[in-house]
Amino acid sequence: MKVVEVLHMNGGNGDISYANNSLVQRNVILMTKPITDQAIGDLYCSLFPETLCIADLGCSSGANTFLVVSEIVKIVEKERKKHNLQSPEFYFHFNDLPGNDFNTIFRSLGEFEQELKKQNGEGLGPCFFSGVAGSFYTRLFPSKSLHFVHSSYSLMWLSQVPNLIEKNKGNIYMASTSPPSVIKAYYKQYEKDFSIFLKYRSEELMKGGKMVLTFLGRESKDPSSKECCYIWELLSMALNELVLEGLIEEEKVDSFNIPQYTPSQGEVKYIVDKEGSFIINKLETTRVHWNNASNNIENINNDGYNVSRCMRAVAEPLLVSQFDPKLIDLVFQKYEEIVSECMAKEKTEFINVTVSMTNKK
Amino acid sequence: MKVVEVLHMNGGNGDISYANNSLVQRNVILMTKPITDQAIGDLYCSLFPETLCIADLGCSSGANTFLVVSEIVKIVEKERKKHNLQSPEFYFHFNDLPGNDFNTIFRSLGEFEQELKKQNGEGLGPCFFSGVAGSFYTRLFPSKSLHFVHSSYSLMWLSQVPNLIEKNKGNIYMASTSPPSVIKAYYKQYEKDFSIFLKYRSEELMKGGKMVLTFLGRESKDPSSKECCYIWELLSMALNELVLEGLIEEEKVDSFNIPQYTPSQGEVKYIVDKEGSFIINKLETTRVHWNNASNNIENINNDGYNVSRCMRAVAEPLLVSQFDPKLIDLVFQKYEEIVSECMAKEKTEFINVTVSMTNKK
Repeated sequence: MKVVEVLHMNGGNGDISYANNSLVQRNVILMTKPITDQAIGDLYCSLFPETLCIADLGCSSGANTFLVVSEIVKIVEKERKKHNLQSPEFYFHFNDLPGNDFNTIFRSLGEFEQELKKQNGEGLGPCFFSGVAGSFYTRLFPSKSLHFVHSSYSLMWLSQVPNLIEKNKGNIYMASTSPPSVIKAYYKQYEKDFSIFLKYRSEELMKGGKMVLTFLGRESKDPSSKECCYIWELLSMALNELVLEGLIEEEKVDSFNIPQYTPSQGEVKYIVDKEGSFIINKLETTRVHWNNASNNIENINNDGYNVSRCMRAVAEPLLVSQFDPKLIDLVFQKYEEIVSECMAKEKTEFINVTVSMTNKK
Repeated sequence: MKVVEVLHMNGGNGDISYANNSLVQRNVILMTKPITDQAIGDLYCSLFPETLCIADLGCSSGANTFLVVSEIVKIVEKERKKHNLQSPEFYFHFNDLPGNDFNTIFRSLGEFEQELKKQNGEGLGPCFFSGVAGSFYTRLFPSKSLHFVHSSYSLMWLSQVPNLIEKNKGNIYMASTSPPSVIKAYYKQYEKDFSIFLKYRSEELMKGGKMVLTFLGRESKDPSSKECCYIWELLSMALNELVLEGLIEEEKVDSFNIPQYTPSQGEVKYIVDKEGSFIINKLETTRVHWNNASNNIENINNDGYNVSRCMRAVAEPLLVSQFDPKLIDLVFQKYEEIVSECMAKEKTEFINVTVSMTNKK
């Protein structure tokens, strides 16, 4: 599986779209807003740039794409008024992998701009937007062209499925039953990917430029602990049920692995320090419940349904690269049942790690 | 009709896509290449920028989108080698209206970049690409952020259908039978649009930045002369046949007008001088045959079919905004017959005006 070609959130505005099934991600953006606000406020007041260049990496498409922009504009407008300055020009870059639905973003921009003007009043500077398709594990922007980089719920995705020397039998992700070599390969891939990410962003950001990243993480020292792997373990249970029913070959599940790693604060700090381009200003962990994952009002209280929808919007393109697309409805039906059952019994939360950094160079 | 929302070339890679029916446009890019080459070469050698920022306005999607980029890179690489310099960073912005199929551009970029590296060898600097959705009759980029603007076969499109005080009865464009007030309204809209275009681009280009624009134009003094209006007159004939057959209401044709104006060299010079931001370096007229309009190899010698396909890829979104989409196949079937007949009898050519300019400010 080539992650760059396969991975993308479900496009459009329909029932199974990411746009309509990403309330968890929205809540996370709002929860971590104080950190973003602080960073963008500090940045603006240290440079007072005429054009403020900002990139959102892994922007996806839908309301969350625009939420980040509105929040950033609001903070800068507050600061520039405090300092009696003219509003700067804003230059926003939306980045995601080439499979992302950029057309939907572009077709909503007109309305969003109107809304932005209404919210911020007459003095707001001109806002420019661009779409940039490509992996953030490559260079995306010219040297020293950015002031601020934001990324939420994207950096836990790896550039590739780790190279495994042993089979991760019966699992589609790290699990307590995975061989130690599998866990090690996942971490190694993460360290390599995140280091490269830091190097490239440091080249693209101006000196003093800032970056706020939020990703799925964990508190436990063990990368295969339930707190970070459970959501995928339940999906592998759904897939394994279809194996038992003879609808999916066992080998297909054994050879399928989700290209994701959820680091601890300690791992993030270790890699940032080792890579050396950034100073960490803030490093925090937050928690968000699995529920309220879908924007679907009719099923607002059906947590299993909502989580299943949310995970489908995220994982469907990966699954159809390995399994018969005709089985996807059934997979997520099973998944919904399994998730419902476990949410009734247990406290189910995602753990988020947020890191705010300044470019040294 | 809101042109910004309606106008776009047919998307995708299918039979009726612009990508597969835009050989005329390709030929025009190649014909006017010496002017582009001269301008980009002069520009590069006067500024030697570390990052060269280039925008293609009205890029559409398909091979033509990338053709311009390859040609520009080739020239810059030649010049920088001559001067024993490192290759710059290239930053290309693809612009078109929000209805354009940017997803198709983004999904072809990986392959195109590989091709670019192969063509230009190891020393080629990093190339960055962005998509910018919006009308070029608004500001699209931050102030002083561009070195070079290119646009081919886009600027004859107006920002809106001119406000007509009299009906343009039986026509969908300027024609010899149009009232003088219609012709005047078309010109006024063009003058207003092109002036605004020049003003905004001058703000976005750095001092000394250059711009090469090619658009459908004319040689005659009369804006309703056959040489520039014939292609649309034939389309209005096809529509009027459907009026006679009772399939389209007469009123629908009478109230439909194509938002396009094909200026003469004199008009272009007059507006550029009056607006005042640019110096004209070169102003040229070229001609291109209507034939070879489609990439469809099976029908390579069927000129009527090819021209009809090409015009459909361009005009279909406009037509479906006014007429029943179910009739479009029939409209272009009639159009094909009419075009075939006239191409057999007459010499049918498009006239192109190309202007190369330098930003004074």
